[in-house]
Amino acid sequence: MSEIYDLIILGGGPAGMTASIYASRAGLSYLMIERAYPGGQAVYSAEIDNYPGLPGITGTELADRFAKHAERMGTHWITDEVTDLDLGETVKTVHTIAGEYKTLNLLICTGASPRRLGIPGEEEFSGRGVSCCAACDGAFFKDKDTAVIGGGDTALADAIYLAGICRTVTVIHRREVFRGNPSLQNRLEGFSNIRYLMSSEPLSIDGREQVESLQVQTPEGIVTIPVDGVFIAIGVLPNSRLFIGKLDTAPGGWILTDRHMRTSIAGVYAAGDVRDTPLRQVLTAAADAAVAVEAIIST
Amino acid sequence: MSEIYDLIILGGGPAGMTASIYASRAGLSYLMIERAYPGGQAVYSAEIDNYPGLPGITGTELADRFAKHAERMGTHWITDEVTDLDLGETVKTVHTIAGEYKTLNLLICTGASPRRLGIPGEEEFSGRGVSCCAACDGAFFKDKDTAVIGGGDTALADAIYLAGICRTVTVIHRREVFRGNPSLQNRLEGFSNIRYLMSSEPLSIDGREQVESLQVQTPEGIVTIPVDGVFIAIGVLPNSRLFIGKLDTAPGGWILTDRHMRTSIAGVYAAGDVRDTPLRQVLTAAADAAVAVEAIIST
Repeated sequence: MSEIYDLIILGGGPAGMTASIYASRAGLSYLMIERAYPGGQAVYSAEIDNYPGLPGITGTELADRFAKHAERMGTHWITDEVTDLDLGETVKTVHTIAGEYKTLNLLICTGASPRRLGIPGEEEFSGRGVSCCAACDGAFFKDKDTAVIGGGDTALADAIYLAGICRTVTVIHRREVFRGNPSLQNRLEGFSNIRYLMSSEPLSIDGREQVESLQVQTPEGIVTIPVDGVFIAIGVLPNSRLFIGKLDTAPGGWILTDRHMRTSIAGVYAAGDVRDTPLRQVLTAAADAAVAVEAIIST
Repeated sequence: MSEIYDLIILGGGPAGMTASIYASRAGLSYLMIERAYPGGQAVYSAEIDNYPGLPGITGTELADRFAKHAERMGTHWITDEVTDLDLGETVKTVHTIAGEYKTLNLLICTGASPRRLGIPGEEEFSGRGVSCCAACDGAFFKDKDTAVIGGGDTALADAIYLAGICRTVTVIHRREVFRGNPSLQNRLEGFSNIRYLMSSEPLSIDGREQVESLQVQTPEGIVTIPVDGVFIAIGVLPNSRLFIGKLDTAPGGWILTDRHMRTSIAGVYAAGDVRDTPLRQVLTAAADAAVAVEAIIST
């Protein structure tokens, strides 16, 4: 435990894996700590069509390609969970379930997690009909009735994906119009089994052992929709709990950085979805990480 | 010519092609203007090993993958050369050799070009032994003697590439140590036909029909090295001539932007190597373009 690393990378999503590729190439002594398995939010995407050079790839395939690329360069990854951090003057200490690690530089790539609805039944039926990942769980709902909550890119892509598997898909969105990409909206029109409840909000998810129905507040009043699955795609929240109060953050808990990805503490950097940034995609997360490692090398 | 586009993209390198992918997906009416062929600086790279998901790819292959991805989405590209610009209040006019085009938004992806040495013989022997692209021209120097000028990533990668083809490669660098990536420096050690002249600067390139020798100022005095080819890799300059005085630029002519890639004029954006940015790579150029198109859509 006495080794002091040049760099510790927290998180193994697209930003963390890219940081690993760049750190290996730069010959840094480093460690990447991921609590579960590499891939990040990307693995939840049924299709990522905007990572240039790899059109129409699934999130899982893209994450796998990133991991293989990182492995080819020689990875230094461990599975462990961070419990606390000492962001000291020069040496930073990362406390984990398994022990502690010391480093000169810390790169936070902890990403973001799906936002919850906060309605009755959501927690209770999680994994029993309620899901945040159409790509992961869609196949369980073959020829069944499902609902998608949300109106952004993720919600629309989920609806398209599910429409090819399920009997019906009801998209429930609180606004009058979708925010999602027009190319996705055009593709929605090709499906006759997608229905829409606009200006509507879910009130509760109900059932006995499994999800059986969804109560929705619509402009015409409260309706009950019989569904077997509810897919929630209403945005993300930063995985920044451990850093709040330690680093400067924007409202919502997004970590503030400069254009070199430097946070408010010297030697601490942030890249990817956890950062206060105008766009959260695989491409931008990867580019953030490249910039951060370059800044660490040059400092 | 009366159509007013949502977006005109200037340049077809990694940034321009990514902008094209995103603009197609977003359903924008747009035009990409490239004066030669798509690919940008990237096509000059013998190997790009840091674009996550596509390890060990050549610059040409990567550019080709970007172009195919863009074509799959439906491209709107023309070959033409911009001669002047009116960056008016709302509608901007792009004057070209072939005519003029009007647009609400302009995205500058004109990239950067190789810096010149500025020594006698450099222009004279261009294409007759002097090259800025080892990946393009290296094969002409099979079993011959070559020199690489520079000490950054491009110079080191060029030396490695040429060492596998040429009889000898002399790397000439004005500093005492290389700036290039340690992983490249390690790989240099595997070649017995690479020689080094550190703290040295080329004085002139000489010959009759073709390059025959190179005069170099070394710490020990002026030496003449017999070479058939001279590869220049001493960095890049922004292709921003048309924008100087119109947009705010950093010293050197790099275009200043905010984090949304907005320049000092409303409706004018810049992405990729032409921008004042800490890192100039395919990955970062592509991410810039994604952010810019997203900002254009949201405005």
